[in-house]
Amino acid sequence: MPKEADFELVTVPLPEPREGEVLVQNIFMSVDPYMRGRMSEGESYIPPFPLGKALEGGCVGRVRRSVGARFREGDLVLSMLGWREYYVSDGTGLIGIDPSLAPVQAYLGILGLPGLTAYVGLLDLGQPKAGDTVFVSGASGAVGAVVCQIAKIKGCRVVGSAGSDAKVAWLLEKARVDAAFNYKKVGDLAAEVAIHCDGLDIYFDNVGGPHLVAALGRMKPFGRVVLCGMISQYNVTRPPRGPGNLILAIMKRLTLRGFIVTDHLHRRQEFLRDMSRWIAEGKIAWKETIVEGIENAPRAFLGLFSGENLGKMLVKLGPEPTA
Amino acid sequence: MPKEADFELVTVPLPEPREGEVLVQNIFMSVDPYMRGRMSEGESYIPPFPLGKALEGGCVGRVRRSVGARFREGDLVLSMLGWREYYVSDGTGLIGIDPSLAPVQAYLGILGLPGLTAYVGLLDLGQPKAGDTVFVSGASGAVGAVVCQIAKIKGCRVVGSAGSDAKVAWLLEKARVDAAFNYKKVGDLAAEVAIHCDGLDIYFDNVGGPHLVAALGRMKPFGRVVLCGMISQYNVTRPPRGPGNLILAIMKRLTLRGFIVTDHLHRRQEFLRDMSRWIAEGKIAWKETIVEGIENAPRAFLGLFSGENLGKMLVKLGPEPTA
Repeated sequence: MPKEADFELVTVPLPEPREGEVLVQNIFMSVDPYMRGRMSEGESYIPPFPLGKALEGGCVGRVRRSVGARFREGDLVLSMLGWREYYVSDGTGLIGIDPSLAPVQAYLGILGLPGLTAYVGLLDLGQPKAGDTVFVSGASGAVGAVVCQIAKIKGCRVVGSAGSDAKVAWLLEKARVDAAFNYKKVGDLAAEVAIHCDGLDIYFDNVGGPHLVAALGRMKPFGRVVLCGMISQYNVTRPPRGPGNLILAIMKRLTLRGFIVTDHLHRRQEFLRDMSRWIAEGKIAWKETIVEGIENAPRAFLGLFSGENLGKMLVKLGPEPTA
Repeated sequence: MPKEADFELVTVPLPEPREGEVLVQNIFMSVDPYMRGRMSEGESYIPPFPLGKALEGGCVGRVRRSVGARFREGDLVLSMLGWREYYVSDGTGLIGIDPSLAPVQAYLGILGLPGLTAYVGLLDLGQPKAGDTVFVSGASGAVGAVVCQIAKIKGCRVVGSAGSDAKVAWLLEKARVDAAFNYKKVGDLAAEVAIHCDGLDIYFDNVGGPHLVAALGRMKPFGRVVLCGMISQYNVTRPPRGPGNLILAIMKRLTLRGFIVTDHLHRRQEFLRDMSRWIAEGKIAWKETIVEGIENAPRAFLGLFSGENLGKMLVKLGPEPTA
């Protein structure tokens, strides 16, 4: 488990933007569980953060100066140059965002990669049909909460697991799932799942560990397990136990599929179209947990692993745009 | 682990075949690892064997008497009424077989469900492309040996794991795999796999346990894991350890799919067409381990779990057809 002392806040001089460059002041930065993977050495789908350099991650900011660049002063931009208050960029990797669809920070959550993760994971990998039962772990998180609600839109029965009574209440009242429970108060996860449904057509896994074991035990034949995250294992110091009942994948003819959202960016246009419509129709609720100030970014990040967040965890770095 | 004393050989009077019925003398019966599952209580994809009744399983036999039935005296038939020397049937579930394609017992192996299992598991679930690397555990078994050779026909590089030097020699010389090793002589399975290939596009799992862990560690991004069997776990008395590195399924975007061949019987015609052609072209080698006499059927079955068989394990019950 990382600790705050593993992070260092440093002040560095910023270069003047040159021709074709912009100076951006960040408004919000994202902290996400996947960043934990970049804090370990070794080969992975994304390189580790180098020691002694600023971390990276999703952020939205406002262009403060533009020297003949394609973005102009006042433009709002999305980039991966989070974990800092200001940056200078030649525009590579910057995406303009439209603040009329939703508050700018939504582009880090419901309209951003967490939303797209939920969309492709559930729809493309999970292949839900109306009437299917979908079980979601980490159900009130930035991804889970969207999965739950897209599943409802698609006519599924949705059961969510979360780590506090407040999260369960939010899932039932705002995300309108059919059933939800606080897994920290449950002795036998598989028995708890069985209380709420006859069996699972889809399990959307954000946590791994005992939740995956319980879900495998409750899957229906030909069910789909979407392996999105295993947050319960990101900080383990010895090899975790795998699911001892994986043989059920044969007996029940299950498909388990792992995925990384960045392989599915070609779905971004359909996602934005659908999600904007669902938001406009009032079919999607979302929640943010906002921590103020770059100095508190490590605490916000670490809080992901103790479940401090309800919905998307964000760090506010600068003034929000006025309407 | 079952033992011979758990089986009972009994002599019972056989009814006379009535109008529309046949009396069949079995020639060969199959013993298969999946039968172990039917020896445990509990819900599964196939009901447990009832105590005190004859077991069931694939067999080929010859019609000895026919009372106006669609099969005639001398016909060769495939059925699920194994574990007995004779039976009377109204023809339900009986399939006539053509002894000109291959010896009759091939319909219990290379041309039967083990062959079809290999065919649909590798081709439909594994989706091999020429140049892919395929790793097969239990590679010299009734299913594994066919998987290896279909993969070779499809232009793949094939690495096989088996449990004796004789099996490894057979794989290299007769099944013409690219590499094979005796897993009982290997300390680190993942390191052994790495010696033989740069990474795996497909892992065809017949055994589960440490082989699955090793394969997950060596899969290439977007690889496919075909979960066909987990023979290492069929006789465990406490929950086995699952693969502690299953998180790699996310990092590497893997698909793991379990299957049961009986869901894929619609592929039988294409399978028989392809397999008959491959046999005729000399592209498929196979091996049988034959135990003589119904009294030795339990020993043959139990031998599957200690790896006594090279290729298909069969029990010979009656005289073979003369050419």
